[in-house]
Amino acid sequence: MTDIRGKRIDCLDKGFVRLIDYMGDDNAIVQAARVSYGEGTKQVSQDRGLIRYLMRHSHTTPFEMVELKFHIKLPIFVARQWIRHRTANVNEYSGRYSIMKEEFYLPDIDQVRPQSTLNKQGRSDERLESEQAERVLGMFRESQKRSYQEYEEMLGYDLAREIARNNLPLSLYTEWYWKIDLHNLFHFLRLRLDSHAQYEIRVYAEAMAEMVKEVVPFAWEAYEDYTLYAQKFSRAELLAIHKMLALAGAQELDDANLKELGLSAREIREFRDKMSTIDDVHEEVKMPGSGVSE
Amino acid sequence: MTDIRGKRIDCLDKGFVRLIDYMGDDNAIVQAARVSYGEGTKQVSQDRGLIRYLMRHSHTTPFEMVELKFHIKLPIFVARQWIRHRTANVNEYSGRYSIMKEEFYLPDIDQVRPQSTLNKQGRSDERLESEQAERVLGMFRESQKRSYQEYEEMLGYDLAREIARNNLPLSLYTEWYWKIDLHNLFHFLRLRLDSHAQYEIRVYAEAMAEMVKEVVPFAWEAYEDYTLYAQKFSRAELLAIHKMLALAGAQELDDANLKELGLSAREIREFRDKMSTIDDVHEEVKMPGSGVSE
Amino acid sequence: MTDIRGKRIDCLDKGFVRLIDYMGDDNAIVQAARVSYGEGTKQVSQDRGLIRYLMRHSHTTPFEMVELKFHIKLPIFVARQWIRHRTANVNEYSGRYSIMKEEFYLPDIDQVRPQSTLNKQGRSDERLESEQAERVLGMFRESQKRSYQEYEEMLGYDLAREIARNNLPLSLYTEWYWKIDLHNLFHFLRLRLDSHAQYEIRVYAEAMAEMVKEVVPFAWEAYEDYTLYAQKFSRAELLAIHKMLALAGAQELDDANLKELGLSAREIREFRDKMSTIDDVHEEVKMPGSGVSE
Amino acid sequence: MTDIRGKRIDCLDKGFVRLIDYMGDDNAIVQAARVSYGEGTKQVSQDRGLIRYLMRHSHTTPFEMVELKFHIKLPIFVARQWIRHRTANVNEYSGRYSIMKEEFYLPDIDQVRPQSTLNKQGRSDERLESEQAERVLGMFRESQKRSYQEYEEMLGYDLAREIARNNLPLSLYTEWYWKIDLHNLFHFLRLRLDSHAQYEIRVYAEAMAEMVKEVVPFAWEAYEDYTLYAQKFSRAELLAIHKMLALAGAQELDDANLKELGLSAREIREFRDKMSTIDDVHEEVKMPGSGVSE
Repeated sequence: MTDIRGKRIDCLDKGFVRLIDYMGDDNAIVQAARVSYGEGTKQVSQDRGLIRYLMRHSHTTPFEMVELKFHIKLPIFVARQWIRHRTANVNEYSGRYSIMKEEFYLPDIDQVRPQSTLNKQGRSDERLESEQAERVLGMFRESQKRSYQEYEEMLGYDLAREIARNNLPLSLYTEWYWKIDLHNLFHFLRLRLDSHAQYEIRVYAEAMAEMVKEVVPFAWEAYEDYTLYAQKFSRAELLAIHKMLALAGAQELDDANLKELGLSAREIREFRDKMSTIDDVHEEVKMPGSGVSE
Repeated sequence: MTDIRGKRIDCLDKGFVRLIDYMGDDNAIVQAARVSYGEGTKQVSQDRGLIRYLMRHSHTTPFEMVELKFHIKLPIFVARQWIRHRTANVNEYSGRYSIMKEEFYLPDIDQVRPQSTLNKQGRSDERLESEQAERVLGMFRESQKRSYQEYEEMLGYDLAREIARNNLPLSLYTEWYWKIDLHNLFHFLRLRLDSHAQYEIRVYAEAMAEMVKEVVPFAWEAYEDYTLYAQKFSRAELLAIHKMLALAGAQELDDANLKELGLSAREIREFRDKMSTIDDVHEEVKMPGSGVSE
Repeated sequence: MTDIRGKRIDCLDKGFVRLIDYMGDDNAIVQAARVSYGEGTKQVSQDRGLIRYLMRHSHTTPFEMVELKFHIKLPIFVARQWIRHRTANVNEYSGRYSIMKEEFYLPDIDQVRPQSTLNKQGRSDERLESEQAERVLGMFRESQKRSYQEYEEMLGYDLAREIARNNLPLSLYTEWYWKIDLHNLFHFLRLRLDSHAQYEIRVYAEAMAEMVKEVVPFAWEAYEDYTLYAQKFSRAELLAIHKMLALAGAQELDDANLKELGLSAREIREFRDKMSTIDDVHEEVKMPGSGVSE
Repeated sequence: MTDIRGKRIDCLDKGFVRLIDYMGDDNAIVQAARVSYGEGTKQVSQDRGLIRYLMRHSHTTPFEMVELKFHIKLPIFVARQWIRHRTANVNEYSGRYSIMKEEFYLPDIDQVRPQSTLNKQGRSDERLESEQAERVLGMFRESQKRSYQEYEEMLGYDLAREIARNNLPLSLYTEWYWKIDLHNLFHFLRLRLDSHAQYEIRVYAEAMAEMVKEVVPFAWEAYEDYTLYAQKFSRAELLAIHKMLALAGAQELDDANLKELGLSAREIREFRDKMSTIDDVHEEVKMPGSGVSE
């Protein structure tokens, strides 16, 4: 495996993610798990299998044994969402000590979109009509330029930097070092790769995902299978699935079939357990007039 | 609602959970969410609906606004599992400052069970045969008694308490104050109410669940529906479900049917989205020879 | 003691701190300590004395047993400093869900000051000359007004709120619920009441200090005596003090004298220990030619 | 600098600390600080000076950018104190999954000491008289042996491991991987190197201190000067020092003198500030009849 320390991916118009350093890899996860589960891990003898088992069963502590440190340049409004993840270490560029640079985020015209009607917090998949989009970008551009001129004028009066910067907009770029363990990074990515996350932070999440994939390929694969592309169904939704299957008289798939779909022998057992739990739930819940003809 | 401060539930043979104090209730969750989502929460106008929405979509921060403080008496081996949850505040009785009391956990004979053959870490559902079980309990009883006599003898020589206590077994009871926010308590309970959790800690989790149910009835109900009794399916398992449905030619349930199963209008939309995502995943993943006749 | 839930203190030109709720008081600290130290606390029999002992000896966990929840309205640049304290729970108003209000921080002219020459990060004690100060305030005022007009124009085109808000300056007000335990609040206050903290966050720290003082008067008093108004001396500084005392042939103060200065009997012993430690350090460190005539 | 990954130091009779891996060194601290303070760090141009400045002024975040991972074998009663530090990642050997080994901590006879009369929680500097000490060690030895025999007998009946282990004493050894950032490790060490910490955990703290010293020599030196060997004086103690100096008519030391004691130019200014603050405090506090003749 090549060492990807120093790898940099550009994000948005002026930002980037750079992987400064990391400690540990797939092997470090396995090593930690073998301390915890001792003899218990012999049964799951291979590394990939063990990592997949840990991920599937939310045995999260071995993933905490890998640590990654990034250098990130990002707009302040993105930094404000990002910092809500409290489990990381951060050193941010300080506008009290230093002069902020004239670097602002200007959205690509393709991202100048209306409020979503479906999603209370996000933007639509449509674009604003072109004249309005241009007008919006023009206002951004002018406003950024003007505010930086004012910032410079204020600094020219020797106004304290900690006051002068407050006239700058949230689209201003800042930088930080950000260090986090793999388990908490997976949690961050689950939230920030989600389609409901703001586009501008998703771009960074995707860049980090690229890097993580290279540092811990087995863990990443397990993360995709059991977290990213997994789906949780509520109690009532499980009933609905049960009912769909029951009404259609669906048959259980046999082992060969399940294996073909990618389930390991152990996962096949686990899947059968889950499906029979659904049936049990169904029995327990009294549903007057549910209309299921059983 | 009655104030349940002071409520105590006995656990195991000599332990207990006592709810010392708490701050906030269902209303505090709603109040915090309305600060965050402002106008956005008008659409989900009723408190119960809002709480269910927050839980369903993992908007966890409003649940952090409720805090509970317990007084707990528990065996040390349970305390050792418990303390791994790092997001709580703890004040434990100190065996350096004070003399430990002669109180040990002696399992009920019904819990004296063999190693599980299915579950690497747990006990079986069977019981040990009665003679052996009695022998085990006898050893426990004798060993506890003797170790406490030795402890007292050592203290009689004025041996430092911090040394003398180290001869006492892990079945010794300790006590602590334990304070945690509701979101992290839900996380604790999800792990410790689980059938894979050790019986002795599950008993405490169940006692706390009783109390939480009374403090935040709406949040508890949502927690059951969307977390406790929810089920997560991996990418491959979703394919399996898809295939079962497809092979049987299952039909989508109509809205009336889903409503009858307990889904709200919004949840019906969300469920349809999930099911169509499964279909999409199915299309995307190339499965040579998967044998599904579509 | 009167219940001060709901108490509000205005901060800066449009902000405030409001104490929503709290759990525990001086008595809760004492109660938790007595669980921990059991018999050990009998010697420090009175509540005030026990709290002072805990604070003095950094026994911090009993202070974690008190929890406070605030509603705060503050400019975004203050929020950015504040959020760096990771041990609190936060629900912030979301500019993705809701429209930001036209409320900006405009510094009082008295706070429009030049960069400090002593303190790399702060402002001077001087004021900018009046014409320049007026010019600065004028720029702030105009820029805030204009940026809000642009924000409204963008929303008029139905631009997504999550994009439109990024043109607004850091002086914009936001709101949040903020919940923290007393130990971590004391840590926050120590940093943010400090003269090196930015004036605008100090104002909020002072408001919260007022409230804490009323909720836990004994703990606050101990906090002032042993933390806020305490002073830490480095190894070399201790040598300097030692030398000053030695060169002048200073005498130890007698107990009556120390008592008069406010030290308890126990603190007198501790003080004498510290002073003799300084002397020991002095002996150990070889200082060629230090010129102390001993 | 030699790579000390893999370095192992034996602790107590059967334990050890082994440094598995680490990320970052003195240079990583400097690098992170330069991101934060940007231009501001030019004035403190050299690495050692910058690290000392950061430590002295509690700018702790750059120290969080170094991470260390240890493999530790330790008695359970030590593990119980250790785990109270919640800011680390842990993977512990599990007595549910695996069979505990027959390894118990037996104190050296030199550590078999009476309860301290000065220090409520600790042991005295004296030794127990030899006959009693032998008796104590004998009880420990016998009890450990017997409890392990019983453990094996119980496992022979196929009793679940999670039950059988509860008869084992707190002197049993366990193992874990423990990962922590340098700032939090410094905090751990400050508490656990302290003379009030239990001897058995202090031994481990000293072993880790040895390793840290090699990984970050500048940071360690600063840590000693400004934390470990620093001394905090309460408000009243500062008055006492002030009074001692005043009564003796002590003179301020001149710069040359302070430099000789090891203070940098910047520290000399800071020291003079502190000493004049003490004088100010003295003025402010009204002390009727304090008897200081000024």
